[in-house]
Amino acid sequence: MNIVENPTRDTWGSLTKRPAKEAADLGSLISEVFEEVQKNGDAALKSYTARFDKVEIEKLKVSQEEIDEAASLVSQDLKEAMELAKQNVKVFHASQFVPKKVVETTEGVSCWQEMRPIEKVGLYIPGGTAPLFSTILMLGIPAKLAGCKEIILCTPPDSQGKINPAILYAAKLVGVTTIFKLGGVQAIAAMTLGTASVPNVYKIFGPGNQYVTAAKQFALTKGVAIDMPAGPSELMVVADQLALPEFVASDLLSQAEHGHDSQVICVANTLESLQAIQEEVVAQMKLLPRKEMAKSAIENSQFILIKSLKDQIDFINEYAAEHLILNVQNETLYLDRIVSAGSIFIGPYTPESAGDYASGTNHTLPTNAYARMYSGVNMDAFTKKITFQKITEKGIQNIGTAIELMAEAEGLQAHKNAVTMRLEHLKSKA
Amino acid sequence: MNIVENPTRDTWGSLTKRPAKEAADLGSLISEVFEEVQKNGDAALKSYTARFDKVEIEKLKVSQEEIDEAASLVSQDLKEAMELAKQNVKVFHASQFVPKKVVETTEGVSCWQEMRPIEKVGLYIPGGTAPLFSTILMLGIPAKLAGCKEIILCTPPDSQGKINPAILYAAKLVGVTTIFKLGGVQAIAAMTLGTASVPNVYKIFGPGNQYVTAAKQFALTKGVAIDMPAGPSELMVVADQLALPEFVASDLLSQAEHGHDSQVICVANTLESLQAIQEEVVAQMKLLPRKEMAKSAIENSQFILIKSLKDQIDFINEYAAEHLILNVQNETLYLDRIVSAGSIFIGPYTPESAGDYASGTNHTLPTNAYARMYSGVNMDAFTKKITFQKITEKGIQNIGTAIELMAEAEGLQAHKNAVTMRLEHLKSKA
Repeated sequence: MNIVENPTRDTWGSLTKRPAKEAADLGSLISEVFEEVQKNGDAALKSYTARFDKVEIEKLKVSQEEIDEAASLVSQDLKEAMELAKQNVKVFHASQFVPKKVVETTEGVSCWQEMRPIEKVGLYIPGGTAPLFSTILMLGIPAKLAGCKEIILCTPPDSQGKINPAILYAAKLVGVTTIFKLGGVQAIAAMTLGTASVPNVYKIFGPGNQYVTAAKQFALTKGVAIDMPAGPSELMVVADQLALPEFVASDLLSQAEHGHDSQVICVANTLESLQAIQEEVVAQMKLLPRKEMAKSAIENSQFILIKSLKDQIDFINEYAAEHLILNVQNETLYLDRIVSAGSIFIGPYTPESAGDYASGTNHTLPTNAYARMYSGVNMDAFTKKITFQKITEKGIQNIGTAIELMAEAEGLQAHKNAVTMRLEHLKSKA
Repeated sequence: MNIVENPTRDTWGSLTKRPAKEAADLGSLISEVFEEVQKNGDAALKSYTARFDKVEIEKLKVSQEEIDEAASLVSQDLKEAMELAKQNVKVFHASQFVPKKVVETTEGVSCWQEMRPIEKVGLYIPGGTAPLFSTILMLGIPAKLAGCKEIILCTPPDSQGKINPAILYAAKLVGVTTIFKLGGVQAIAAMTLGTASVPNVYKIFGPGNQYVTAAKQFALTKGVAIDMPAGPSELMVVADQLALPEFVASDLLSQAEHGHDSQVICVANTLESLQAIQEEVVAQMKLLPRKEMAKSAIENSQFILIKSLKDQIDFINEYAAEHLILNVQNETLYLDRIVSAGSIFIGPYTPESAGDYASGTNHTLPTNAYARMYSGVNMDAFTKKITFQKITEKGIQNIGTAIELMAEAEGLQAHKNAVTMRLEHLKSKA
């Protein structure tokens, strides 16, 4: 852990650079799995599950009995915590509905937009030792709110052919339609192509390893939409001299424990702050069960001294963090000037964990500087907007000549005719 | 032109199927161009322009003199038409700004979203005999409104090394920052990678041939966003018995003239309507300058008799048209039940041409049934939304325990610690 003091702008590019990924060439494996699933459907899915997940699965679809059983295995405390999170996520996402607003652009020409659900969506939740049920809340709740009719979930079975009860309970809680014991590339292929058991969907959401990520990219070329390109998780904390070092350190570590490739950047305006934060990081890290993981992420982290507010803001925008904590007294100096970030956490009592689980905001956010052009998952992600227009006789008379002129200038005579026909009809009626 | 009467639902799949495209394998050409542009920058761009556009270009950037000259070459009538279109597009898109709405999900926990511009965007406009200046209005106006700082435009030069004056005039009218004489794959590569002359951008918009489309897909894998996957243009018209056949025919032909692969579908509830519309199509087609093109598109078109309203609506949703004209008396029977369409044109005096040019809605819309999951270009396309949250002492006390429980259940101890640290600090203060 070193400290970079007052870096000049020509070094910002390297400071904000994400760790280079070995972009493994998985192309041939992925197209092979897609072809197999296309050809052999459920049989291919079961065979890949045997090969990759080391378990023979009789039925891909999770049964009602399994779901009921799961409910009895989740503690009451955890159920209540999920309920609180669900409520907050629901309230915040419900506030994102955009009401219909009819605009008369010219007299007689009315235009508006309306939101409609994406009817069929698929959620992918990785397996592993820890059940990522919080991601089910983050994806399933807005999907349900949006009115998606079919919300399927794929998650790999463990070596006993089982799914973690917390996953099943969360899926039921948010209203997932059907759950499948299916992971990896074959899950993405199934949701893209459809099989006898697994319906195809229009859009696929959710995190995953490099295979799942590459499979989602491939699915995109097969006519399915995806939530966003994925990358390792990141956090930038901006701390002023009043920020408590133990709070900042705890936030940095919460990000670092995600994995070796997590990115952590801490910006402060005094050297003393940075030193105190680093000391706290060392002290707190010792107590973590996942300290090995956190340690290597912290080694790749940056502690940067930037004194001027303007430079801090430019640096924030250049990095375009997935998560940005502003542990500062006067956030109003920052907020309007931040252009690129996934989600912003303001003040000393707003840790990233709050947004990861229960405050109401979504935790599926753009990494790898994609915050420059992508939003995190929100209601827009589960809907699309249709534009509508209705033009009166008066309306087409008002804009008709302009359309005729422009269509003609573009060499599109039939486009012009569609208007001329109507204008002449109105003249003959008059 | 035949008529399909009362098709059974098992045949809908084939009726709504888009003409299969020869997905030419352009992969190696495209990665070669990208590599060349990465390596040799402007020199590569000029060399490809010489090779593909058959013209030697000295300066890629269009000069101020060229822009000024263009203004003197566009007729006053056309300028006024563009001005009217600009005004309407601006008013409608400005109405799409979503105001900040702070939601207190739990006492002391405030969450909200704010829109921010994508700072650097690139527009691509194809060359060819007809200057597609209307697409510049449709992309440039919302980009400017959104607050995009850098709006560049690439369009191929003609054999004299010139750009059509209407293109240059429209670009200036909407506030494009810089215009480049650059087309095809090399234009997309330049906007993705950046060269000495052409800045890289975060998102690329605009139509193009199969090379441009494939290059945009490739750009996506290089960390740039694109507007949407492209396909041939489509129109579905639903006509009731009061719809004037000449209006319907003129609309079908306005779509058909786009190209051999344009798709046109007409749905009506009486056989007489369909027959009368077909007669009008034949009569009007004779008079079109682009009749050869229209003819082959019309040959691939579908005229379908569907009597029941419910079946009509299900068929509309199954097809998910880019453009949908409802030339019916009682549109309220339809509107709320339509889930998938790009843009909907309501009533006898609302031809597709109106939305193509001047009503105010955008004409960059999802084809190929992508309306199931993509919106057309709107203000969302030039912005992203950042989520914000601010939690008070009381707020973290209200949701802290839930976060601790969930983090622990997911095996993320440091996530829990970030909350525990704060809760204990508050206890010790109390």
